[in-house]
Amino acid sequence: MKTYLDCYPCVLRQTIEAARISGASEPVARDLVLKTLDLLRQLPEGLTPPQIGTQVHAMVREETGHADPYQVVKQQATKKALLFLPKLRSLVSEAEDPFATAVRLSIAGNIIDYGPNPSYDLWDVVQQALRVDLAINDLESLRERLNTANSILFLGDNAGETVFDRVLIETLKQPVVYAVRGGPIINDATLADAKAAGVDGVASLVSNGSRIPGTVLSDCSPAFQKRFKEAEVILAKGQGNYETLSEVQAPIWFLLKVKCPVIGRNLGAAAGSFVVKQGLRA
Amino acid sequence: MKTYLDCYPCVLRQTIEAARISGASEPVARDLVLKTLDLLRQLPEGLTPPQIGTQVHAMVREETGHADPYQVVKQQATKKALLFLPKLRSLVSEAEDPFATAVRLSIAGNIIDYGPNPSYDLWDVVQQALRVDLAINDLESLRERLNTANSILFLGDNAGETVFDRVLIETLKQPVVYAVRGGPIINDATLADAKAAGVDGVASLVSNGSRIPGTVLSDCSPAFQKRFKEAEVILAKGQGNYETLSEVQAPIWFLLKVKCPVIGRNLGAAAGSFVVKQGLRA
Repeated sequence: MKTYLDCYPCVLRQTIEAARISGASEPVARDLVLKTLDLLRQLPEGLTPPQIGTQVHAMVREETGHADPYQVVKQQATKKALLFLPKLRSLVSEAEDPFATAVRLSIAGNIIDYGPNPSYDLWDVVQQALRVDLAINDLESLRERLNTANSILFLGDNAGETVFDRVLIETLKQPVVYAVRGGPIINDATLADAKAAGVDGVASLVSNGSRIPGTVLSDCSPAFQKRFKEAEVILAKGQGNYETLSEVQAPIWFLLKVKCPVIGRNLGAAAGSFVVKQGLRA
Repeated sequence: MKTYLDCYPCVLRQTIEAARISGASEPVARDLVLKTLDLLRQLPEGLTPPQIGTQVHAMVREETGHADPYQVVKQQATKKALLFLPKLRSLVSEAEDPFATAVRLSIAGNIIDYGPNPSYDLWDVVQQALRVDLAINDLESLRERLNTANSILFLGDNAGETVFDRVLIETLKQPVVYAVRGGPIINDATLADAKAAGVDGVASLVSNGSRIPGTVLSDCSPAFQKRFKEAEVILAKGQGNYETLSEVQAPIWFLLKVKCPVIGRNLGAAAGSFVVKQGLRA
Protein backbone atom coordinates (compact mmCIF):
# COMPACT_ATOMS: atom_id res chain seq x y z
CA MET A 1 0.00 0.00 0.00
CA LYS A 2 1.34 3.42 -0.90
CA THR A 3 1.79 6.21 1.59
CA TYR A 4 -1.16 8.57 1.39
CA LEU A 5 -1.08 12.26 2.34
CA ASP A 6 -3.20 11.33 5.34
CA CYS A 7 -0.28 9.22 6.61
CA TYR A 8 1.91 12.30 7.07
CA PRO A 9 0.20 13.62 10.22
CA CYS A 10 0.22 10.07 11.59
CA VAL A 11 3.98 9.72 11.04
CA LEU A 12 4.51 12.90 13.06
CA ARG A 13 2.21 11.60 15.77
CA GLN A 14 4.27 8.40 15.93
CA THR A 15 7.49 10.39 16.34
CA ILE A 16 6.02 12.28 19.29
CA GLU A 17 4.70 9.09 20.86
CA ALA A 18 7.97 7.18 20.40
CA ALA A 19 10.00 10.12 21.73
CA ARG A 20 7.86 10.31 24.86
CA ILE A 21 7.83 6.56 25.51
CA SER A 22 11.63 6.67 25.13
CA GLY A 23 11.77 9.28 27.87
CA ALA A 24 12.99 12.05 25.55
CA SER A 25 13.06 15.55 27.05
CA GLU A 26 10.85 18.14 25.33
CA PRO A 27 13.80 19.72 23.43
CA VAL A 28 14.91 16.28 22.19
CA ALA A 29 11.33 15.43 21.21
CA ARG A 30 11.14 18.76 19.39
CA ASP A 31 14.36 18.02 17.54
CA LEU A 32 12.97 14.62 16.52
CA VAL A 33 9.79 16.26 15.25
CA LEU A 34 11.84 18.71 13.15
CA LYS A 35 13.89 15.81 11.76
CA THR A 36 10.67 14.01 10.88
CA LEU A 37 9.49 17.11 8.99
CA ASP A 38 12.72 16.95 6.97
CA LEU A 39 12.24 13.24 6.38
CA LEU A 40 8.67 13.78 5.14
CA ARG A 41 9.84 16.69 2.98
CA GLN A 42 12.26 14.42 1.12
CA LEU A 43 10.38 11.17 1.04
CA PRO A 44 11.45 8.90 -1.83
CA GLU A 45 8.62 7.70 -4.06
CA GLY A 46 7.04 4.35 -3.38
CA LEU A 47 7.77 3.84 0.32
CA THR A 48 5.05 2.13 2.33
CA PRO A 49 4.02 3.66 5.68
CA PRO A 50 5.86 0.97 7.74
CA GLN A 51 9.11 1.82 5.93
CA ILE A 52 8.71 5.47 6.94
CA GLY A 53 7.85 4.35 10.47
CA THR A 54 11.08 2.33 10.52
CA GLN A 55 13.12 5.44 9.75
CA VAL A 56 11.29 7.46 12.40
CA HIS A 57 11.84 4.84 15.08
CA ALA A 58 15.51 4.40 14.11
CA MET A 59 15.93 8.18 14.52
CA VAL A 60 14.27 8.09 17.93
CA ARG A 61 16.47 5.16 19.03
CA GLU A 62 19.58 6.99 17.87
CA GLU A 63 18.73 10.27 19.61
CA THR A 64 17.46 8.78 22.86
CA GLY A 65 19.82 5.80 23.07
CA HIS A 66 16.83 3.63 23.98
CA ALA A 67 17.13 0.46 21.87
CA ASP A 68 13.74 -1.05 22.73
CA PRO A 69 11.45 1.57 24.26
CA TYR A 70 8.36 -0.62 23.93
CA GLN A 71 9.89 -3.60 25.77
CA VAL A 72 7.84 -3.13 28.94
CA VAL A 73 4.67 -2.45 26.92
CA LYS A 74 5.27 -5.72 25.05
CA GLN A 75 5.93 -7.76 28.18
CA GLN A 76 2.80 -6.41 29.82
CA ALA A 77 0.71 -7.11 26.71
CA THR A 78 1.93 -10.72 26.56
CA LYS A 79 1.31 -11.24 30.26
CA LYS A 80 -2.19 -9.81 30.00
CA ALA A 81 -3.01 -11.87 26.90
CA LEU A 82 -1.77 -15.09 28.56
CA LEU A 83 -4.42 -14.61 31.25
CA PHE A 84 -6.99 -15.00 28.45
CA LEU A 85 -5.49 -18.22 27.09
CA PRO A 86 -7.79 -20.72 28.90
CA LYS A 87 -10.87 -18.65 28.01
CA LEU A 88 -9.83 -18.39 24.38
CA ARG A 89 -9.23 -22.14 24.17
CA SER A 90 -12.68 -22.81 25.64
CA LEU A 91 -14.31 -20.47 23.15
CA VAL A 92 -12.64 -22.39 20.32
CA SER A 93 -13.32 -25.89 21.63
CA GLU A 94 -16.98 -25.09 22.33
CA ALA A 95 -17.54 -23.38 18.97
CA GLU A 96 -19.59 -24.92 16.18
CA ASP A 97 -16.81 -23.93 13.79
CA PRO A 98 -13.56 -23.96 15.80
CA PHE A 99 -11.40 -22.79 12.89
CA ALA A 100 -13.59 -19.77 12.06
CA THR A 101 -13.75 -18.86 15.75
CA ALA A 102 -9.99 -19.15 16.14
CA VAL A 103 -9.48 -16.90 13.10
CA ARG A 104 -11.82 -14.30 14.59
CA LEU A 105 -10.03 -14.46 17.94
CA SER A 106 -6.67 -14.08 16.25
CA ILE A 107 -8.00 -10.92 14.56
CA ALA A 108 -9.35 -9.70 17.92
CA GLY A 109 -5.81 -9.99 19.30
CA ASN A 110 -4.74 -7.50 16.65
CA ILE A 111 -6.38 -4.74 18.75
CA ILE A 112 -3.33 -4.93 21.02
CA ASP A 113 -1.39 -1.99 19.69
CA TYR A 114 1.58 0.08 20.62
CA GLY A 115 1.90 2.64 23.33
CA PRO A 116 -0.26 3.10 26.34
CA ASN A 117 -3.73 2.89 24.87
CA PRO A 118 -6.08 2.19 27.74
CA SER A 119 -9.10 2.98 25.59
CA TYR A 120 -9.83 -0.56 24.50
CA ASP A 121 -11.06 -3.44 26.59
CA LEU A 122 -9.57 -6.66 25.27
CA TRP A 123 -12.46 -8.84 26.39
CA ASP A 124 -14.96 -6.48 24.74
CA VAL A 125 -13.06 -6.85 21.48
CA VAL A 126 -13.07 -10.65 21.87
CA GLN A 127 -16.85 -10.59 22.32
CA GLN A 128 -17.20 -8.30 19.31
CA ALA A 129 -15.00 -10.60 17.22
CA LEU A 130 -17.32 -13.53 17.87
CA ARG A 131 -20.40 -11.54 16.92
CA VAL A 132 -19.68 -9.19 14.03
CA ASP A 133 -19.74 -9.91 10.33
CA LEU A 134 -16.35 -9.85 8.63
CA ALA A 135 -16.22 -6.70 6.45
CA ILE A 136 -14.18 -8.69 3.93
CA ASN A 137 -14.69 -12.41 4.20
CA ASP A 138 -12.31 -14.68 2.33
CA LEU A 139 -12.44 -17.24 5.11
CA GLU A 140 -13.80 -20.00 2.87
CA SER A 141 -11.04 -19.67 0.27
CA LEU A 142 -8.53 -19.84 3.13
CA ARG A 143 -10.23 -22.93 4.61
CA GLU A 144 -10.18 -24.58 1.22
CA ARG A 145 -6.50 -23.83 0.67
CA LEU A 146 -5.65 -25.13 4.14
CA ASN A 147 -7.43 -28.41 3.37
CA THR A 148 -4.67 -29.41 0.97
CA ALA A 149 -1.63 -27.46 2.21
CA ASN A 150 1.23 -29.36 3.82
CA SER A 151 2.64 -26.44 5.77
CA ILE A 152 1.81 -22.89 6.76
CA LEU A 153 3.85 -19.70 7.04
CA PHE A 154 2.38 -17.41 9.69
CA LEU A 155 3.55 -13.77 9.77
CA GLY A 156 3.13 -12.44 13.30
CA ASP A 157 2.46 -8.85 14.24
CA ASN A 158 2.35 -7.43 17.79
CA ALA A 159 3.48 -8.87 21.11
CA GLY A 160 0.45 -10.08 23.05
CA GLU A 161 -1.43 -10.71 19.82
CA THR A 162 0.95 -13.68 19.62
CA VAL A 163 -1.10 -15.45 22.33
CA PHE A 164 -4.22 -15.17 20.17
CA ASP A 165 -2.24 -16.48 17.19
CA ARG A 166 -1.10 -19.43 19.31
CA VAL A 167 -4.75 -20.39 19.81
CA LEU A 168 -5.37 -20.26 16.06
CA ILE A 169 -2.24 -22.34 15.38
CA GLU A 170 -3.50 -24.96 17.85
CA THR A 171 -6.50 -25.54 15.53
CA LEU A 172 -4.31 -26.09 12.45
CA LYS A 173 -3.27 -29.60 11.46
CA GLN A 174 -0.17 -28.72 9.44
CA PRO A 175 3.24 -27.71 10.80
CA VAL A 176 3.42 -23.95 11.14
CA VAL A 177 6.42 -21.65 10.82
CA TYR A 178 5.80 -18.46 12.80
CA ALA A 179 7.88 -15.51 11.52
CA VAL A 180 8.61 -12.46 13.64
CA ARG A 181 10.54 -9.22 13.14
CA GLY A 182 14.32 -9.34 13.11
CA GLY A 183 14.67 -6.81 15.94
CA PRO A 184 12.61 -4.66 18.27
CA ILE A 185 10.44 -2.13 16.40
CA ILE A 186 7.49 -0.48 18.14
CA ASN A 187 5.55 -3.25 19.91
CA ASP A 188 6.03 -5.83 17.17
CA ALA A 189 6.84 -9.35 18.30
CA THR A 190 10.43 -10.57 18.17
CA LEU A 191 11.67 -14.12 18.88
CA ALA A 192 11.75 -13.36 22.63
CA ASP A 193 8.17 -12.04 22.55
CA ALA A 194 6.87 -15.05 20.62
CA LYS A 195 8.60 -17.38 23.10
CA ALA A 196 7.13 -15.50 26.05
CA ALA A 197 3.70 -16.15 24.51
CA GLY A 198 4.46 -19.88 24.18
CA VAL A 199 4.25 -19.84 20.39
CA ASP A 200 7.43 -21.95 20.32
CA GLY A 201 5.36 -24.83 21.72
CA VAL A 202 3.06 -24.94 18.68
CA ALA A 203 5.20 -23.63 15.79
CA SER A 204 8.79 -23.26 14.62
CA LEU A 205 9.88 -19.71 15.24
CA VAL A 206 11.92 -17.81 12.68
CA SER A 207 13.09 -14.23 12.39
CA ASN A 208 12.42 -12.47 9.10
CA GLY A 209 15.75 -10.70 9.50
CA SER A 210 14.25 -7.24 9.09
CA ARG A 211 13.41 -4.50 11.56
CA ILE A 212 10.43 -2.99 9.75
CA PRO A 213 6.94 -3.09 11.34
CA GLY A 214 5.68 -5.06 8.36
CA THR A 215 7.23 -7.44 5.81
CA VAL A 216 9.31 -5.73 3.13
CA LEU A 217 10.72 -8.76 1.33
CA SER A 218 13.78 -6.98 -0.09
CA ASP A 219 14.78 -6.08 3.47
CA CYS A 220 14.32 -9.63 4.82
CA SER A 221 17.03 -12.27 5.10
CA PRO A 222 17.64 -14.51 2.05
CA ALA A 223 16.51 -17.50 4.14
CA PHE A 224 13.20 -15.81 4.92
CA GLN A 225 12.73 -14.66 1.31
CA LYS A 226 13.17 -18.27 0.16
CA ARG A 227 10.70 -19.49 2.75
CA PHE A 228 8.16 -16.85 1.69
CA LYS A 229 8.56 -17.69 -2.00
CA GLU A 230 8.09 -21.40 -1.41
CA ALA A 231 5.23 -21.13 1.08
CA GLU A 232 2.07 -23.02 0.19
CA VAL A 233 -0.09 -20.73 2.27
CA ILE A 234 0.72 -17.58 4.22
CA LEU A 235 -1.31 -16.05 7.04
CA ALA A 236 -0.34 -12.40 7.56
CA LYS A 237 -1.51 -10.61 10.68
CA GLY A 238 -2.15 -6.91 11.11
CA GLN A 239 -1.98 -3.65 9.26
CA GLY A 240 1.81 -3.49 8.86
CA ASN A 241 1.92 -6.79 6.99
CA TYR A 242 -1.00 -5.67 4.83
CA GLU A 243 0.59 -2.31 4.03
CA THR A 244 3.83 -3.93 2.91
CA LEU A 245 2.48 -7.08 1.17
CA SER A 246 -0.84 -5.95 -0.35
CA GLU A 247 0.75 -5.64 -3.79
CA VAL A 248 2.83 -8.83 -3.63
CA GLN A 249 1.53 -11.86 -5.54
CA ALA A 250 1.47 -14.79 -3.13
CA PRO A 251 -0.87 -17.41 -1.63
CA ILE A 252 -1.51 -15.00 1.23
CA TRP A 253 -4.48 -14.21 3.46
CA PHE A 254 -4.46 -11.04 5.53
CA LEU A 255 -6.11 -11.22 8.96
CA LEU A 256 -6.54 -7.82 10.54
CA LYS A 257 -8.65 -5.39 12.44
CA VAL A 258 -8.88 -2.08 10.57
CA LYS A 259 -7.52 0.49 13.00
CA CYS A 260 -6.71 3.30 10.59
CA PRO A 261 -9.16 5.10 8.25
CA VAL A 262 -6.59 5.29 5.43
CA ILE A 263 -6.11 1.51 5.39
CA GLY A 264 -9.88 1.22 5.70
CA ARG A 265 -10.38 3.27 2.53
CA ASN A 266 -7.67 1.28 0.74
CA LEU A 267 -9.41 -1.97 1.70
CA GLY A 268 -12.95 -0.68 1.29
CA ALA A 269 -13.76 -1.54 4.91
CA ALA A 270 -14.78 0.75 7.75
CA ALA A 271 -12.39 1.56 10.59
CA GLY A 272 -13.04 -0.91 13.40
CA SER A 273 -14.06 -3.76 11.13
CA PHE A 274 -12.63 -7.29 10.96
CA VAL A 275 -11.09 -8.48 7.72
CA VAL A 276 -9.97 -11.81 6.21
CA LYS A 277 -8.68 -10.85 2.79
CA GLN A 278 -7.01 -13.01 0.22
CA GLY A 279 -4.01 -11.26 -1.37
CA LEU A 280 -3.06 -10.88 -5.01
CA ARG A 281 -2.96 -14.24 -6.70
CA ALA A 282 0.01 -15.14 -8.87
CA MET B 1 -1.72 29.08 24.70
CA LYS B 2 1.56 28.04 23.11
CA THR B 3 1.82 25.64 20.24
CA TYR B 4 2.67 22.18 21.56
CA LEU B 5 4.47 19.48 19.58
CA ASP B 6 1.17 17.63 19.49
CA CYS B 7 -0.26 20.51 17.44
CA TYR B 8 2.08 19.77 14.53
CA PRO B 9 0.28 16.65 13.26
CA CYS B 10 -3.01 18.50 13.66
CA VAL B 11 -1.78 21.43 11.52
CA LEU B 12 -0.91 18.95 8.76
CA ARG B 13 -4.30 17.33 9.11
CA GLN B 14 -5.94 20.75 8.72
CA THR B 15 -3.99 21.42 5.54
CA ILE B 16 -5.21 18.16 4.02
CA GLU B 17 -8.79 18.83 5.09
CA ALA B 18 -8.79 22.42 3.80
CA ALA B 19 -7.18 21.36 0.53
CA ARG B 20 -9.84 18.71 -0.04
CA ILE B 21 -12.78 20.93 0.90
CA SER B 22 -11.36 23.51 -1.53
CA GLY B 23 -11.48 20.91 -4.28
CA ALA B 24 -7.70 20.70 -4.65
CA SER B 25 -6.40 17.92 -6.89
CA GLU B 26 -4.14 15.36 -5.20
CA PRO B 27 -0.92 16.95 -6.63
CA VAL B 28 -2.02 20.39 -5.38
CA ALA B 29 -2.93 18.91 -1.97
CA ARG B 30 0.49 17.25 -1.90
CA ASP B 31 2.21 20.53 -2.69
CA LEU B 32 0.25 22.20 0.12
CA VAL B 33 1.32 19.47 2.54
CA LEU B 34 4.96 19.96 1.57
CA LYS B 35 4.61 23.72 2.05
CA THR B 36 3.10 23.09 5.47
CA LEU B 37 6.12 20.93 6.37
CA ASP B 38 8.34 23.90 5.46
CA LEU B 39 6.15 26.24 7.49
CA LEU B 40 6.35 23.95 10.55
CA ARG B 41 10.09 23.58 10.05
CA GLN B 42 10.58 27.34 10.34
CA LEU B 43 7.94 28.27 12.86
CA PRO B 44 8.73 31.49 14.73
CA GLU B 45 8.67 31.19 18.53
CA GLY B 46 5.53 32.10 20.39
CA LEU B 47 2.85 31.61 17.76
CA THR B 48 -0.46 30.22 18.98
CA PRO B 49 -2.07 27.35 17.03
CA PRO B 50 -4.74 29.60 15.42
CA GLN B 51 -1.99 31.83 14.02
CA ILE B 52 -0.39 28.82 12.35
CA GLY B 53 -3.83 27.75 11.13
CA THR B 54 -4.27 31.19 9.59
CA GLN B 55 -1.09 30.76 7.55
CA VAL B 56 -2.11 27.28 6.43
CA HIS B 57 -5.55 28.42 5.30
CA ALA B 58 -4.10 31.49 3.53
CA MET B 59 -1.77 29.14 1.64
CA VAL B 60 -4.67 26.88 0.67
CA ARG B 61 -6.73 29.88 -0.50
CA GLU B 62 -3.84 31.14 -2.58
CA GLU B 63 -3.11 27.79 -4.26
CA THR B 64 -6.71 26.78 -4.88
CA GLY B 65 -8.15 30.24 -5.59
CA HIS B 66 -11.07 29.36 -3.31
CA ALA B 67 -11.62 32.41 -1.06
CA ASP B 68 -14.19 30.88 1.28
CA PRO B 69 -14.19 27.08 0.97
CA TYR B 70 -16.29 26.61 4.11
CA GLN B 71 -19.10 28.94 2.95
CA VAL B 72 -21.58 26.16 2.21
CA VAL B 73 -20.66 24.33 5.43
CA LYS B 74 -21.33 27.54 7.37
CA GLN B 75 -24.65 28.23 5.67
CA GLN B 76 -25.81 24.67 6.33
CA ALA B 77 -24.71 24.84 9.97
CA THR B 78 -26.64 28.08 10.51
CA LYS B 79 -29.73 26.72 8.80
CA LYS B 80 -29.62 23.54 10.88
CA ALA B 81 -29.07 25.45 14.13
CA LEU B 82 -31.97 27.82 13.38
CA LEU B 83 -34.29 24.80 13.35
CA PHE B 84 -33.34 24.32 17.02
CA LEU B 85 -34.10 27.94 18.00
CA PRO B 86 -37.66 27.41 19.33
CA LYS B 87 -36.57 24.31 21.28
CA LEU B 88 -33.56 26.12 22.75
CA ARG B 89 -35.73 29.05 23.82
CA SER B 90 -38.20 26.68 25.52
CA LEU B 91 -35.39 24.93 27.36
CA VAL B 92 -34.21 28.30 28.67
CA SER B 93 -37.63 29.71 29.58
CA GLU B 94 -38.65 26.50 31.36
CA ALA B 95 -35.34 26.18 33.24
CA GLU B 96 -35.01 26.80 36.96
CA ASP B 97 -31.91 28.85 36.20
CA PRO B 98 -32.38 30.30 32.71
CA PHE B 99 -28.95 32.00 32.63
CA ALA B 100 -27.04 28.84 33.58
CA THR B 101 -29.04 26.84 31.06
CA ALA B 102 -28.41 29.40 28.30
CA VAL B 103 -24.66 29.33 29.07
CA ARG B 104 -24.66 25.53 28.80
CA LEU B 105 -26.58 25.64 25.52
CA SER B 106 -24.20 28.22 24.14
CA ILE B 107 -21.32 25.84 24.97
CA ALA B 108 -23.22 22.95 23.37
CA GLY B 109 -23.35 25.02 20.15
CA ASN B 110 -19.55 25.00 20.18
CA ILE B 111 -19.67 21.37 19.01
CA ILE B 112 -20.50 22.72 15.55
CA ASP B 113 -17.07 22.52 14.00
CA TYR B 114 -15.48 22.80 10.62
CA GLY B 115 -15.50 20.37 7.78
CA PRO B 116 -17.86 17.53 7.19
CA ASN B 117 -18.07 15.93 10.59
CA PRO B 118 -21.20 13.82 10.67
CA SER B 119 -20.09 12.08 13.83
CA TYR B 120 -21.88 14.31 16.30
CA ASP B 121 -25.60 14.65 16.85
CA LEU B 122 -26.39 18.23 17.79
CA TRP B 123 -29.43 17.34 19.87
CA ASP B 124 -27.45 14.71 21.79
CA VAL B 125 -24.89 17.37 22.66
CA VAL B 126 -27.67 19.72 23.79
CA GLN B 127 -29.02 17.02 26.09
CA GLN B 128 -25.53 16.33 27.39
CA ALA B 129 -24.97 20.04 28.02
CA LEU B 130 -28.03 20.21 30.26
CA ARG B 131 -26.93 17.19 32.28
CA VAL B 132 -23.17 17.13 32.73
CA ASP B 133 -21.09 18.87 35.36
CA LEU B 134 -18.90 21.66 34.07
CA ALA B 135 -15.27 20.44 34.22
CA ILE B 136 -14.24 23.99 35.13
CA ASN B 137 -17.05 26.01 36.63
CA ASP B 138 -16.55 29.75 36.99
CA LEU B 139 -20.20 30.37 36.25
CA GLU B 140 -20.88 32.08 39.59
CA SER B 141 -18.05 34.61 39.20
CA LEU B 142 -19.42 35.37 35.73
CA ARG B 143 -22.96 35.77 37.07
CA GLU B 144 -21.69 38.10 39.77
CA ARG B 145 -19.77 40.24 37.32
CA LEU B 146 -22.76 40.43 35.01
CA ASN B 147 -24.91 41.69 37.89
CA THR B 148 -23.12 45.05 37.87
CA ALA B 149 -21.81 45.32 34.30
CA ASN B 150 -23.35 47.90 31.98
CA SER B 151 -22.38 46.24 28.75
CA ILE B 152 -20.96 42.99 27.42
CA LEU B 153 -18.48 42.16 24.69
CA PHE B 154 -19.22 38.72 23.22
CA LEU B 155 -16.55 37.07 21.04
CA GLY B 156 -18.23 34.68 18.63
CA ASP B 157 -16.71 31.53 17.21
CA ASN B 158 -18.26 29.29 14.55
CA ALA B 159 -21.19 29.82 12.20
CA GLY B 160 -24.22 27.92 13.52
CA GLU B 161 -22.93 28.21 17.06
CA THR B 162 -24.06 31.84 16.63
CA VAL B 163 -27.69 30.69 16.97
CA PHE B 164 -26.90 29.19 20.37
CA ASP B 165 -25.12 32.41 21.35
CA ARG B 166 -28.22 34.36 20.30
CA VAL B 167 -30.26 32.40 22.84
CA LEU B 168 -27.76 33.23 25.57
CA ILE B 169 -27.75 36.91 24.59
CA GLU B 170 -31.56 36.94 24.86
CA THR B 171 -31.20 36.14 28.58
CA LEU B 172 -28.79 39.04 29.21
CA LYS B 173 -30.12 42.39 30.39
CA GLN B 174 -27.25 44.59 29.18
CA PRO B 175 -26.54 45.72 25.63
CA VAL B 176 -24.24 43.21 23.93
CA VAL B 177 -21.64 43.80 21.25
CA TYR B 178 -21.08 40.59 19.28
CA ALA B 179 -17.66 40.49 17.59
CA VAL B 180 -16.90 38.22 14.66
CA ARG B 181 -13.86 37.53 12.47
CA GLY B 182 -12.83 40.15 9.93
CA GLY B 183 -13.01 37.70 7.00
CA PRO B 184 -13.81 34.09 6.16
CA ILE B 185 -11.48 31.65 7.94
CA ILE B 186 -12.44 27.97 8.29
CA ASN B 187 -16.06 27.91 9.51
CA ASP B 188 -15.73 30.88 11.83
CA ALA B 189 -18.60 33.35 11.82
CA THR B 190 -18.28 36.59 9.87
CA LEU B 191 -20.75 39.49 9.85
CA ALA B 192 -22.82 37.74 7.17
CA ASP B 193 -22.93 34.51 9.20
CA ALA B 194 -23.95 36.32 12.40
CA LYS B 195 -26.71 38.13 10.49
CA ALA B 196 -27.93 34.88 8.96
CA ALA B 197 -28.28 33.56 12.54
CA GLY B 198 -30.30 36.65 13.56
CA VAL B 199 -27.70 37.82 16.07
CA ASP B 200 -28.13 41.34 14.68
CA GLY B 201 -31.61 41.39 16.26
CA VAL B 202 -30.22 40.99 19.81
CA ALA B 203 -26.73 42.57 19.69
CA SER B 204 -24.64 45.12 17.80
CA LEU B 205 -22.43 43.27 15.38
CA VAL B 206 -18.80 44.29 14.89
CA SER B 207 -15.91 42.80 12.98
CA ASN B 208 -12.66 42.36 14.88
CA GLY B 209 -10.81 43.26 11.69
CA SER B 210 -8.67 40.11 11.73
CA ARG B 211 -8.83 36.88 9.79
CA ILE B 212 -7.43 34.55 12.44
CA PRO B 213 -9.60 31.73 13.88
CA GLY B 214 -9.20 33.26 17.34
CA THR B 215 -8.55 36.74 18.71
CA VAL B 216 -4.96 37.94 18.35
CA LEU B 217 -5.31 41.50 19.60
CA SER B 218 -2.27 42.86 17.74
CA ASP B 219 -3.86 41.67 14.49
CA CYS B 220 -7.27 43.24 15.23
CA SER B 221 -8.42 46.70 14.14
CA PRO B 222 -7.61 49.63 16.44
CA ALA B 223 -11.34 50.12 17.00
CA PHE B 224 -11.73 46.53 18.18
CA GLN B 225 -8.61 46.74 20.36
CA LYS B 226 -10.06 49.80 22.09
CA ARG B 227 -13.38 48.05 22.59
CA PHE B 228 -11.63 45.01 24.06
CA LYS B 229 -9.51 47.12 26.39
CA GLU B 230 -12.50 49.06 27.69
CA ALA B 231 -14.87 46.10 27.99
CA GLU B 232 -16.42 45.56 31.42
CA VAL B 233 -16.97 41.88 30.77
CA ILE B 234 -16.02 39.66 27.85
CA LEU B 235 -17.55 36.31 26.93
CA ALA B 236 -15.22 34.36 24.63
CA LYS B 237 -16.53 31.31 22.82
CA GLY B 238 -14.59 28.29 21.66
CA GLN B 239 -11.09 26.91 21.54
CA GLY B 240 -9.62 29.47 19.12
CA ASN B 241 -10.48 32.37 21.41
CA TYR B 242 -9.08 30.45 24.38
CA GLU B 243 -5.85 29.57 22.58
CA THR B 244 -5.22 33.19 21.62
CA LEU B 245 -6.46 34.97 24.77
CA SER B 246 -5.61 32.56 27.62
CA GLU B 247 -2.58 34.63 28.58
CA VAL B 248 -4.19 38.06 28.19
CA GLN B 249 -5.24 39.84 31.38
CA ALA B 250 -8.86 40.89 30.94
CA PRO B 251 -12.30 40.55 32.57
CA ILE B 252 -12.89 37.53 30.34
CA TRP B 253 -14.76 34.26 30.72
CA PHE B 254 -14.10 31.44 28.25
CA LEU B 255 -17.07 29.25 27.31
CA LEU B 256 -16.06 26.16 25.38
CA LYS B 257 -16.37 22.50 24.76
CA VAL B 258 -12.96 20.82 24.91
CA LYS B 259 -12.56 19.18 21.52
CA CYS B 260 -8.79 18.71 21.48
CA PRO B 261 -6.68 16.73 23.99
CA VAL B 262 -3.86 19.31 23.93
CA ILE B 263 -6.20 22.13 24.98
CA GLY B 264 -7.69 19.72 27.49
CA ARG B 265 -4.29 19.14 29.08
CA ASN B 266 -3.58 22.88 29.06
CA LEU B 267 -6.89 23.53 30.81
CA GLY B 268 -6.77 20.47 33.05
CA ALA B 269 -10.08 19.22 31.64
CA ALA B 270 -10.83 16.02 29.74
CA ALA B 271 -11.57 16.08 26.03
CA GLY B 272 -15.34 16.29 25.58
CA SER B 273 -15.95 18.29 28.73
CA PHE B 274 -17.76 21.62 29.12
CA VAL B 275 -15.85 24.57 30.53
CA VAL B 276 -16.67 28.04 31.91
CA LYS B 277 -13.29 29.47 32.83
CA GLN B 278 -12.44 32.92 34.06
CA GLY B 279 -9.33 34.31 32.37
CA LEU B 280 -6.27 35.97 33.85
CA ARG B 281 -7.28 38.84 36.08
CA ALA B 282 -5.54 42.17 35.70
